[in-house]
Amino acid sequence: MKFVIDMMGGDNGVKATISGTKEFLKKHNDIELFLIGDLNELSEFKDYPNIHLVESKTVLKMDVDPMTALKEKDSSLMVAVNTYLNEKCDCLISAGSTGALLSAAVFKIKRIEGITRPCLITSFPTIKKGKKFVVCDLGANNANTKEELVQFAIMGSIYYSILYKENNPKVALLSNGTEEEKGSPLCKETYPLLKDSKSINFVGNIEARDPLYGNIDVLVSDGFTGNVFLKSVEGTAKIMSQMIKDAFKRNIFSMIGYLFSKKGIVEMKEKMDYKNVGGALLMGVNGVVIKAHGSSDTKSFLSALENGYNLTKVDIVNKFKEELFK
Amino acid sequence: MKFVIDMMGGDNGVKATISGTKEFLKKHNDIELFLIGDLNELSEFKDYPNIHLVESKTVLKMDVDPMTALKEKDSSLMVAVNTYLNEKCDCLISAGSTGALLSAAVFKIKRIEGITRPCLITSFPTIKKGKKFVVCDLGANNANTKEELVQFAIMGSIYYSILYKENNPKVALLSNGTEEEKGSPLCKETYPLLKDSKSINFVGNIEARDPLYGNIDVLVSDGFTGNVFLKSVEGTAKIMSQMIKDAFKRNIFSMIGYLFSKKGIVEMKEKMDYKNVGGALLMGVNGVVIKAHGSSDTKSFLSALENGYNLTKVDIVNKFKEELFK
Repeated sequence: MKFVIDMMGGDNGVKATISGTKEFLKKHNDIELFLIGDLNELSEFKDYPNIHLVESKTVLKMDVDPMTALKEKDSSLMVAVNTYLNEKCDCLISAGSTGALLSAAVFKIKRIEGITRPCLITSFPTIKKGKKFVVCDLGANNANTKEELVQFAIMGSIYYSILYKENNPKVALLSNGTEEEKGSPLCKETYPLLKDSKSINFVGNIEARDPLYGNIDVLVSDGFTGNVFLKSVEGTAKIMSQMIKDAFKRNIFSMIGYLFSKKGIVEMKEKMDYKNVGGALLMGVNGVVIKAHGSSDTKSFLSALENGYNLTKVDIVNKFKEELFK
Repeated sequence: MKFVIDMMGGDNGVKATISGTKEFLKKHNDIELFLIGDLNELSEFKDYPNIHLVESKTVLKMDVDPMTALKEKDSSLMVAVNTYLNEKCDCLISAGSTGALLSAAVFKIKRIEGITRPCLITSFPTIKKGKKFVVCDLGANNANTKEELVQFAIMGSIYYSILYKENNPKVALLSNGTEEEKGSPLCKETYPLLKDSKSINFVGNIEARDPLYGNIDVLVSDGFTGNVFLKSVEGTAKIMSQMIKDAFKRNIFSMIGYLFSKKGIVEMKEKMDYKNVGGALLMGVNGVVIKAHGSSDTKSFLSALENGYNLTKVDIVNKFKEELFK
């Protein structure tokens, strides 16, 4: 396997990407890595046999205009994309601007035939042990059409089938009520198309709270609403974990309480820690392109790399194409 | 004070509304109540001196078409609205269909002059002790214009000022990034209007996770996205509370741990329990109209009643009009 990593893209600079990459290397020493960035900052990697350091001169800003991004050929992202193509790599990871990554991937790596818009997709935990659901689109797009939502549903469905070996996963549309006539104008337009689609197992509209109970497999949404869903769940999980910590710190009794109940609490916090979520696949482009969290720390950058590793291993892109065209 | 309660509207029938109302009566015996519903089912209230039972013959379905709802004059909601008007009541509470309540309120109780669309507004807890923020619109609307979002911002701002006695509350627009150019097409259109508005203290775009940290006071959103935010936060809080419970139930040690740390954990769960949130005010109509949760149980119906009580006590509608027209 060959991976390209944009080491400069995140909010936290190379600190998180370097430590995350080092953790990743401890587990996987059979991967050839192309690390893109400032060579001085990456110098600690220079003696690794399976690592190639590739210089980039600039870093794209998080709010860069996607068209400007494409022209900045010396940026870590554009060097990463070009290296990906020239070296025929399997996987590209960046914690940089979503918009820039999307346009670079679409213009250079290209979309899979028939896909109008790629979407960001990842797995979410549920209250049921071991059960996950996937959400698409998490924010590759700011606005979508009904036809794009149908494509997201198909992509999500295939992604879920490949990853969780489940035929016929249950697909639901994120709405503000379960009835057919509920929802935004876009939901109302999309519902009949999803209902009529023979490529998916559509189970209807779903309210935002319900997927967390583990009753569906694929949650379909436009990118803006999907992003609000992602960040609401993530934020609530984060403040509640903090509150639990504070509750145990109240006094000596609560601290003793923590010692007794630690195992279950730690397990729960791990399950709901979005640093473990591992970035999102930019599904619909012709390669494994992973968007890591902009504010990635070591743990979340590592899990983005692990996510890329797993998706490359299951050959997600070719499997997806096979399913799409069968 | 005179309250009208639609006793039939919720998913759980009269069970929750009866027990919630009884709890409410224990605390407040100075209120005149008009309870609307099936007189047989409400017979236990017939000897209360300050309660009037008013008969209604039908119950509107949750997915009723709002225009059909207006014509069903014998329904508990329409009888409630008419009683509200005839008896010159101060507050109306219903756990029935949002759409039906909205249209009944708009057509019969009327909007406040100048308000195009009412919005649903309520308070959310944050990680900061005692600090809350309000969200509008939580789902009175399925689609909104930029001008409506500006009105929501003004309504939210005044609501927050009255309730939390804070001048110049910080208003933010729910988006998928903090930069001005981020967001759905609607966000992008709305941003400059909010920025230029002299009636509010606009602090920019905010991502869904951030209000939970307590750094803003008013979160503005279209009704569809606001509803997704509400239910994502609510659902995550609910599954995490369940997970905490399960973590403590693992074995004898964790149960002992719970005994030691109980107080803080219970406090946290109470804070994040959306049954305490108390329904939402339908702001912008000419009266205190409270939408209780459709699936209200005793606790959540009681808190909707308490919310109505508090908002009536601070004379929210007249104060709002004064602020609006000053």
